[in-house]
Amino acid sequence: MRVRVDLNISLDGFATTTGGTPENPMGEDWLRLVGAYAATRTFRARVLGDTSGAGTTDVDDEYAAAYFEGVGAEIMGAGMFGLHLHPGDPDWRGWWGPNPPFHVPVFVLTHESRPSLEMEGGTTFHFISATPQEALARAAAEAGDLDVRVGGGATVAREYLRAGLVDQLHVAIAPIILGSGIRLWDDLRGLERGYRVTTQAAASGTAHVTFSR
Amino acid sequence: MRVRVDLNISLDGFATTTGGTPENPMGEDWLRLVGAYAATRTFRARVLGDTSGAGTTDVDDEYAAAYFEGVGAEIMGAGMFGLHLHPGDPDWRGWWGPNPPFHVPVFVLTHESRPSLEMEGGTTFHFISATPQEALARAAAEAGDLDVRVGGGATVAREYLRAGLVDQLHVAIAPIILGSGIRLWDDLRGLERGYRVTTQAAASGTAHVTFSR
Repeated sequence: MRVRVDLNISLDGFATTTGGTPENPMGEDWLRLVGAYAATRTFRARVLGDTSGAGTTDVDDEYAAAYFEGVGAEIMGAGMFGLHLHPGDPDWRGWWGPNPPFHVPVFVLTHESRPSLEMEGGTTFHFISATPQEALARAAAEAGDLDVRVGGGATVAREYLRAGLVDQLHVAIAPIILGSGIRLWDDLRGLERGYRVTTQAAASGTAHVTFSR
Repeated sequence: MRVRVDLNISLDGFATTTGGTPENPMGEDWLRLVGAYAATRTFRARVLGDTSGAGTTDVDDEYAAAYFEGVGAEIMGAGMFGLHLHPGDPDWRGWWGPNPPFHVPVFVLTHESRPSLEMEGGTTFHFISATPQEALARAAAEAGDLDVRVGGGATVAREYLRAGLVDQLHVAIAPIILGSGIRLWDDLRGLERGYRVTTQAAASGTAHVTFSR
């Protein structure tokens, strides 16, 4: 069992964007941040259900495919589930649709007490109030031999990185300058020590940097 | 004539390091920031005078070689000349040694009035108090058909980038997290618009990202 983190960040290190609108909640910047990933054949097939074979197939797609392989449980912050959009509403089932792309148990970190939510396709959301270590123990028990992914958002990912709990960090660095948002790298000086770091470049201009133990 | 900027930065966007000591003025972090560049065959030959052929020869070396090609004049901040080390001392000839690796006219931006300094190997330092545009006009007149490089430091490079005066920006991103220093990308949101951006990866883990007009 390894603990994995995969994030899209900008050249200036922002893992989130600002400037969303009610019509486009993630904002135009979000589309630019994740554009190369969303253009891959794997993302189109796995997340959008597009089985036509359309999409890019180069290095970006290799990382997109790896993203979905070997994960047995996921941990995410409340924001990544979308809990903030309908606080306290027990009927809100998150913004991932009826068949979320996880297909494994997902532990959502929140102080809000909610019953677990079984979705189509093998995804079950469990809402837990726990330290990073406690959440990891629960996720690891579900994952068995497979990996636990800390899915995000950036603040949750940073907590795990800072606690030394992450075995593999992959960042896809989009060649854009966002100027605001949450900085992934804050308070992580010297993170590279104890990891092997490799880099691959994609035709999209994305730099894929991987820290592995 | 193009205006070029080449910089080494960390994953968290710092183009300078902190923590230097009197014995090691640039500090250990500096060696880690520029280590892949300093290990290239080109750097060893051109800057250290090592003609043994030792050094790396992959993508890092291709960028190191390109760094030295086609530059007809250079602009740098006072700090990059080392003016701050001996302020007001007319005998101080900078920290680049008797035969600096530029071999072209170099315009040093400073409010200190100093006579020009002719060094071995074709490098002449001119000390000028000028706006970025004025300094560029003077450097361009010297460069002729060749390029003008804005050599740094980070603050000077950012001024030129923010003023829209740079035709080609190459950053070599070292896979390290520094946590402090001067951030290259501050106040440069949206810089990528109007540029084509390409990325290449080196075995050292360095991501070479180039913005070209």
